[in-house]
Amino acid sequence: MTNPRQPLYTALSPALLNLYDLNHAIVVIIDVLRATSTIATALYNGAKCVIPVDSVAKCIELGRQIDGITAGERDGMIAEGLEHGNSPFEYSRDFIGGKTLVLTTTNGTKLLHMALDRGAGQIVTGSFPNLSAVCTYLLGQNQPVVLACAAWKDRINIEDMLFAGAVIHQVKDHFSINCDSSQIAETLYLDANATNDLFEFMKNKNASHYHRLNGYGLEKDIRYCLTPDLAPVLPLYENGKLIVA
Amino acid sequence: MTNPRQPLYTALSPALLNLYDLNHAIVVIIDVLRATSTIATALYNGAKCVIPVDSVAKCIELGRQIDGITAGERDGMIAEGLEHGNSPFEYSRDFIGGKTLVLTTTNGTKLLHMALDRGAGQIVTGSFPNLSAVCTYLLGQNQPVVLACAAWKDRINIEDMLFAGAVIHQVKDHFSINCDSSQIAETLYLDANATNDLFEFMKNKNASHYHRLNGYGLEKDIRYCLTPDLAPVLPLYENGKLIVA
Repeated sequence: MTNPRQPLYTALSPALLNLYDLNHAIVVIIDVLRATSTIATALYNGAKCVIPVDSVAKCIELGRQIDGITAGERDGMIAEGLEHGNSPFEYSRDFIGGKTLVLTTTNGTKLLHMALDRGAGQIVTGSFPNLSAVCTYLLGQNQPVVLACAAWKDRINIEDMLFAGAVIHQVKDHFSINCDSSQIAETLYLDANATNDLFEFMKNKNASHYHRLNGYGLEKDIRYCLTPDLAPVLPLYENGKLIVA
Repeated sequence: MTNPRQPLYTALSPALLNLYDLNHAIVVIIDVLRATSTIATALYNGAKCVIPVDSVAKCIELGRQIDGITAGERDGMIAEGLEHGNSPFEYSRDFIGGKTLVLTTTNGTKLLHMALDRGAGQIVTGSFPNLSAVCTYLLGQNQPVVLACAAWKDRINIEDMLFAGAVIHQVKDHFSINCDSSQIAETLYLDANATNDLFEFMKNKNASHYHRLNGYGLEKDIRYCLTPDLAPVLPLYENGKLIVA
């Protein structure tokens, strides 16, 4: 006896999230550059938990209350009043081990709260550094899945779509996929993967986020955020916190 | 002396159209299956004009007033109270020559009115049957361009994205493209085009619209709507009507 296949959808922008039923679904929040890559990294390096908040003011207030590390960016730069930014390289084991990270970002943490407000069954976060952990989890749950891309201020971006495509490529035989966005995402991923260098693919495609971050000297961040399984944990949202599942 | 390159953007769903400035732009309305394919075909076959309306009631009323042909679909079927559907094969020269077509569709004509409401500089319609006419027009105007996909009830679809990609592939050297959606559309188109059979590509990708229409026995429509330059005219919106530019 096998269970019927569960549906899988991809929302390529937060502005499209309302098209999908999140109630009984696992929603995978995807913000490859850089929020969800940084979340996986901080947890992999021993952070007690990551608390995603949707405003800088809340980040500062909560950080003070619980003596947490406050971090986040707006438009790719450290937000005023916060101690740290959104680079995975800031969160080494020495620095973040045993601590709580309070994080706010332009797109990713906002999307997570949107999914919460829309009654998501479960929320996890995904990015290349924890690609396999995400796939393994989805394959084990037998629940509908919505891959939710954070995009950039609602504009669809290449890197979040590439990650959605990477997940779809690994799990598609176990889901029912009647969703053009998912088909397109997998097609894009297969194209990119055939080049054996997602960084070069982003560069060649003139990806907007590649330009934004590379302009800030963050090539190292981009390369890290496009590399699979460097931080193999599954961040799961429970009681206001992302913890290792 | 050459003019600076104008920007080109792609809105992959009506729900994303508000992200782009339409004021001085040529907006290309894209609803490959089947509204904009049918509009090009009717005009190519001698229709005096096509009047796109956003409701069935308006279609019936206007058709009566001006003695026009009323046509349209909701959810892929002829809408109740209208005389004709949304298949390009209904609009032969014998039938439509010299007449006015009043048309309403689920996605395409609604998007056109959305672009109007948002102050689009100019509105034209595009689909594979008039691909080259669209590209030639865009290359001659030196204006910003927004390729606006009608999608399916706001869900991104493969065929509209393929057409956007086909336009981008032809005109990209003459525009400034800082838009991931456009890059993704061209990538998808190049993939599809490499197979030399867009119909098979749609089928292999399990495209949702392929299933919907093929289920109604409309394979012939789909094949026609994916074939370039069978109806080489440029429908331009002026004073409430689409006419041949």
